[in-house]
Amino acid sequence: MLKEQLENVRSQAPLVHNITNYVTVNDCANILLACGGSPIMADDPAEAADITSICGGLNINIGTLNQSTIPAMLAAGKKANQCGRPVLLDPVGAGASPLRTQTAGQLLDQVSFTAIRGNVSEIKALSLGSATTRGVDADLADAITEDNLDESIRFAQDFSARTGAVIAITGVIDLVCDRQQAFIIRNGHPMLSRITGSGCMLSAMMAAYLTANRDTPLAAAAAAVCAMGLCGEIAYSHLKEGEGSGTFRSRLIDAVYCLSGDELERGANYEVR
Amino acid sequence: MLKEQLENVRSQAPLVHNITNYVTVNDCANILLACGGSPIMADDPAEAADITSICGGLNINIGTLNQSTIPAMLAAGKKANQCGRPVLLDPVGAGASPLRTQTAGQLLDQVSFTAIRGNVSEIKALSLGSATTRGVDADLADAITEDNLDESIRFAQDFSARTGAVIAITGVIDLVCDRQQAFIIRNGHPMLSRITGSGCMLSAMMAAYLTANRDTPLAAAAAAVCAMGLCGEIAYSHLKEGEGSGTFRSRLIDAVYCLSGDELERGANYEVR
Amino acid sequence: MLKEQLENVRSQAPLVHNITNYVTVNDCANILLACGGSPIMADDPAEAADITSICGGLNINIGTLNQSTIPAMLAAGKKANQCGRPVLLDPVGAGASPLRTQTAGQLLDQVSFTAIRGNVSEIKALSLGSATTRGVDADLADAITEDNLDESIRFAQDFSARTGAVIAITGVIDLVCDRQQAFIIRNGHPMLSRITGSGCMLSAMMAAYLTANRDTPLAAAAAAVCAMGLCGEIAYSHLKEGEGSGTFRSRLIDAVYCLSGDELERGANYEVR
Repeated sequence: MLKEQLENVRSQAPLVHNITNYVTVNDCANILLACGGSPIMADDPAEAADITSICGGLNINIGTLNQSTIPAMLAAGKKANQCGRPVLLDPVGAGASPLRTQTAGQLLDQVSFTAIRGNVSEIKALSLGSATTRGVDADLADAITEDNLDESIRFAQDFSARTGAVIAITGVIDLVCDRQQAFIIRNGHPMLSRITGSGCMLSAMMAAYLTANRDTPLAAAAAAVCAMGLCGEIAYSHLKEGEGSGTFRSRLIDAVYCLSGDELERGANYEVR
Repeated sequence: MLKEQLENVRSQAPLVHNITNYVTVNDCANILLACGGSPIMADDPAEAADITSICGGLNINIGTLNQSTIPAMLAAGKKANQCGRPVLLDPVGAGASPLRTQTAGQLLDQVSFTAIRGNVSEIKALSLGSATTRGVDADLADAITEDNLDESIRFAQDFSARTGAVIAITGVIDLVCDRQQAFIIRNGHPMLSRITGSGCMLSAMMAAYLTANRDTPLAAAAAAVCAMGLCGEIAYSHLKEGEGSGTFRSRLIDAVYCLSGDELERGANYEVR
Repeated sequence: MLKEQLENVRSQAPLVHNITNYVTVNDCANILLACGGSPIMADDPAEAADITSICGGLNINIGTLNQSTIPAMLAAGKKANQCGRPVLLDPVGAGASPLRTQTAGQLLDQVSFTAIRGNVSEIKALSLGSATTRGVDADLADAITEDNLDESIRFAQDFSARTGAVIAITGVIDLVCDRQQAFIIRNGHPMLSRITGSGCMLSAMMAAYLTANRDTPLAAAAAAVCAMGLCGEIAYSHLKEGEGSGTFRSRLIDAVYCLSGDELERGANYEVR
């Protein structure tokens, strides 16, 4: 089933508008190209909505938000809603500063999102309006584990019901939920947390999946999460003695570039509840 | 003949001021170092002209233009003209939004460019004042082909006559023209379009070539285009099973780093009309 | 002795707030993760101090400073001082424009730095209030050599006495000094100057070392310089025929990722005066 999601990206080459942070923006552009999409980045308020209107989907990432890009995010998000295009929110660092938490809240109030992807701290900050976040990496005490899985699913489905968005919480175990169904995904590799941008790249790729699979946002988001996790496993398996996170990053993009629908189908490790 | 162009870059190590987008800026800096130049990036209006005045050349790329960088581009461009330094324009996404098309037009009005490099959609948008652009990648319907080659050359030479700039239109077939001569270049590899920044990197490198070859801008621009295309071929030829666009990107920079004048002379695939 | 400095970074995983340039920001984030730290980037004045307050240390790099990030740098620096957290200054391009020289001076006036790292031109510009800088790379005429070593140490120790900061001047020979002691370090490889960001990455990594070794800033700074130089040597030794600066960059991050305390102890090449 995930196979079609991937193949739709490759055949449709969705053009995705990204308003994203400058730390990982190059990785986001490269992952979009590698998965079969096409990226455009534009974050000035004077053109954000215009660019959105020529794109198939929109990816908003608040990683290095500022006074110029915040209005651009709002304008682009509203335009995407008007045009009926998928919009994804990656609330990087929500909870780490009032500006981030407030901006994420403002986006949630004014834009209707197709999907929201973050780590558990960020999603909690968004959901609860506040949280303790340790920088941009997940608060370890708040990780999703086998022990708190049921509770975590309830939390994510609740939040999905309130927002109308597919909620993707990624970490060692990944959850992708709408109000009715939950994908529990066990792909991935710890090495993904040793490079910057694996979360941002996943969000950018998920936006491409959502754009090429308009009618199946839950499956599209789950396919993107499985694909990134599986590619992390593949990239790691190719590392040789003396290679580390620098080579891993190139290998991860290679794996996304090379991944076929059949490989995704075979390698995806998930259950649906 | 192209050999000297490359060797002049290696021996002079031209310092190039780049006002460019934050998506591919790291690749631009690395390609400038790899080809033998030296990069400096500065885009605040309060220092742009000062930085231009200590550099050998200027590369203006409107990829993620904003209200702060647009006046910096204008100030730097005018300063480069005053100082008699080469200036290159890469009108990324011209035609994709009014802001980009207007800014590119404003730059053309106020700055005299040594060279303008873009894909065919961007150059058309610039030349015609408007166009339909599909994001930042070339509109396929508008590609330069063997069938429309004569017409494309006439178009490029016309635009060169109007602007005084060398016009470089890159794609499957590349054209580099001044009002009298046209280089038709058939180097390159499709993989170059599967990474972000191959166009931006070419523009940065071309600015270094123009700076180190002040008296021969047409040949300098053509040499840069041949070099980047040839390096794309070399990078692709080194890829192994399971490698893709991530490794290709590193290999491309490697190839530029390693390329000698003799290899460029042998590998360049062009005709002059 | 350097071994403990490295191991403290790995065991404490210091969270470092970076206000840095967009050219090499991705490399800075990746090197922080590779060495065992954790990065966060935030440069809007409305959140800079908030982010600083949740981090262990702060890295200020003026590489692409602008009207929005300058106040963020000042606010974050003051907050770090209030909270008693280590702060590092990388005065990229100081001396290249009045804006850079003045901003660096303003930072020095208003913020108490734990360490300042730059090339000899930048540190001279900072110390003397002005200098001739050739872009962001060191002015060769001003390099530290065996011949001017004593004079260079006196200069660095003077500047350390005036600022209270550890002064790290990096180049072919690296100096790391406080007012009493000087580490003269001879690790490194010329290839480090053929990629962008080796200086910025060193500063980011040094901030992590300072944060995890609060009581020994001089040794921490020296350990970071030795580690980066040694990793440059290791990365170069792994290059194969046809590989260049693109692969070197990945290999450098690999080497930082893989480096153990024992390897650092064995490979560090320094004397203390």
